[in-house]
Amino acid sequence: SNMVKVAVVGGEGIGPEVTAQSRRVLDWFAAKRNVPMTLREAQYGLIPYLATGKVLPEDTAEAMDEADAILWGATGGPETTEVPAAARKAGSLLGLRSKYDLYANLRPIMASPALSASAPLKAEVLDGVDFVIIRELTSGIYFGEPRGIETLPDGQRRGFNTEQYTTNQIRRVARSAFELARTRRNKVCSVDKANVLETSVVWREEVIRLHKEEFSDVELTHLYVDNAAMQIVREPRQFDVMVTGNIFGDILSDCAAMASGSLGMLPSASLGPVDRFGRRKALYEPVHGSAPDIAGKGIANPLGSILSVAMLLRLTLNRPEDADLLEQAVQAALASGARTADIAEAGAKRLSTVQMGDAVLSAL
Amino acid sequence: SNMVKVAVVGGEGIGPEVTAQSRRVLDWFAAKRNVPMTLREAQYGLIPYLATGKVLPEDTAEAMDEADAILWGATGGPETTEVPAAARKAGSLLGLRSKYDLYANLRPIMASPALSASAPLKAEVLDGVDFVIIRELTSGIYFGEPRGIETLPDGQRRGFNTEQYTTNQIRRVARSAFELARTRRNKVCSVDKANVLETSVVWREEVIRLHKEEFSDVELTHLYVDNAAMQIVREPRQFDVMVTGNIFGDILSDCAAMASGSLGMLPSASLGPVDRFGRRKALYEPVHGSAPDIAGKGIANPLGSILSVAMLLRLTLNRPEDADLLEQAVQAALASGARTADIAEAGAKRLSTVQMGDAVLSAL
Ligand SMILES: CC(C)[C@H](C(=O)O)[C@@H](O)C(=O)O
Ligand SMILES: CC(C)[C@H](C(=O)O)[C@@H](O)C(=O)O
Repeated sequence: SNMVKVAVVGGEGIGPEVTAQSRRVLDWFAAKRNVPMTLREAQYGLIPYLATGKVLPEDTAEAMDEADAILWGATGGPETTEVPAAARKAGSLLGLRSKYDLYANLRPIMASPALSASAPLKAEVLDGVDFVIIRELTSGIYFGEPRGIETLPDGQRRGFNTEQYTTNQIRRVARSAFELARTRRNKVCSVDKANVLETSVVWREEVIRLHKEEFSDVELTHLYVDNAAMQIVREPRQFDVMVTGNIFGDILSDCAAMASGSLGMLPSASLGPVDRFGRRKALYEPVHGSAPDIAGKGIANPLGSILSVAMLLRLTLNRPEDADLLEQAVQAALASGARTADIAEAGAKRLSTVQMGDAVLSAL
Repeated sequence: SNMVKVAVVGGEGIGPEVTAQSRRVLDWFAAKRNVPMTLREAQYGLIPYLATGKVLPEDTAEAMDEADAILWGATGGPETTEVPAAARKAGSLLGLRSKYDLYANLRPIMASPALSASAPLKAEVLDGVDFVIIRELTSGIYFGEPRGIETLPDGQRRGFNTEQYTTNQIRRVARSAFELARTRRNKVCSVDKANVLETSVVWREEVIRLHKEEFSDVELTHLYVDNAAMQIVREPRQFDVMVTGNIFGDILSDCAAMASGSLGMLPSASLGPVDRFGRRKALYEPVHGSAPDIAGKGIANPLGSILSVAMLLRLTLNRPEDADLLEQAVQAALASGARTADIAEAGAKRLSTVQMGDAVLSAL
């Protein structure tokens, strides 16, 4: 059938709360805009662990295996301590990224004019910020071997990890960056630490090679990661597409998140390879985590998750008009003053998670 | 003798220009405040390479070897391409950090009220920011073995590096952090990625162990590095002393530099172990680099280097009143409107490097 399969996995902490609002949005697009998709909800984390002994039970694994797109909430927080580390690891988010080979993690960074009052950066620095960080998500130091903890002859302990990239791993994520840039302002900035790390030397050489071979129409620049962290805060408008490795992308995207105004607002997409049917497995999730401090209170910001639905509409469903519609509805809700606690100015009215969902739906 | 030996090495790019102003400041303290020191100037980089075949000639190595404190300018930039990589590497800054075992890199982050107009962060976020990042500088992925670039059986290339820390390496830099915190607001935040890296697991365990054994009076918190990058931008006032590994410290301190207003203003100190005579080798340098784009123009900001002299007065010479005097002179110069180009508001008068040196000297 032509139906796109979406697995909806709220997970832990505020994950289920925010995902419930995204679910309403998905239902709206299925009903009102005839978006051809089937939704399947599945559980992840402590609750299924208590019932089945697995954080990722069979049923959830199956739903995710067969899905074209996974809408993921969040995982982590104090709940993790109630699950033995081995059981936790067996179904971890890192494991899922690896299982589905979700190598290209896209994190759009957009300044919302409506939020500039609550952002730490000045409005004149934020104004017009619109870039995407592409973080390599299935290699680098997160997965490199050997890794471990050993005891040295003198009784000391030593922890060690391996940072590593092969040319194919670099090439495919760099390709995603160049292709995305061509649909935007045609600029790629590659970030590494090639003045110190051999891994980065190979990274930079391979990015340059691919650029020369296939993307010489795209403007390519390079920054060292320390300088990139600075530039993201100093003048974020200079960037269009930034591409970098796993750990650098982890740090820089959180740094950029703050630059943009609020972590609670930011969506992400993690894309796998294109298969022989032209399909590309994808996992969509807000950039924020499980936020245990506010979980269960019904006050979390669902916009990071809802904007992840917009990415799903655009990238998996190939429905750019619907994606635009949803993004505009979010902006309209913000423009009308809708604010959850994380983005509210002092003294302003704070909506609940559900009320923010209402605000987006009524703007649709 | 009681004379403290200071080697003054301007280096490359804007290094010699800014260091010349620090030299004037050092001379002032020797003459007017009877600070007991002998200064020895030495060359580093392209110029000695052309004369001797070495970026770090014998004479400079000797001056640095015998010095208690090294005042370093900068290295790097396009000049490096005129020197063969091997010759460059033989005298590199990384090599010097390692040779003198300068494991504790202190980077104070202070917001200058006078500069808030030119800072990207809002004044209300910057106001009162005053913390120190201690970056481990002689281990981690910068120095870990094995490292290299190999060709795989399928013809691909692979770059690899080793991140690693031993408990002794962690303990000594954590000790520096706890000791410094006791002289300040008594708070240490340790930054790692213990949810992913074994190296960070050992890091965190050892910091906790040392804290329990010897520093339980100090408040200790932990942040993951991605969250730390965000918090530095979101609410930098929350930090007092932050301690972290080599690569994380590299990234976070540049991120924090921007948060503080200007890279050109920031000093640093890199400290070695205390020897049996109670002496501790130290290298002082501005956080900024060689800035090839403005080298030779006489417009670089010398305050990062001059404030490094204040750190030298405080830490090597144990002259806190003189350090305060110099820091106050810098603030007075700024308050009177003295601005180099990097910190000037649009339309404001821009001082040359020498004029900024004059402004500090006349405020002394
Ligand atoms: C939870 C953690 C393992 C994860 C990561 O570092 O990748 C998170 O920080 C993220 O960015 O998705
Ligand atoms: C030039 C480079 C090797 C150096 C580093 O990464 O340590 C610099 O960025 C610094 O922070 O002093």
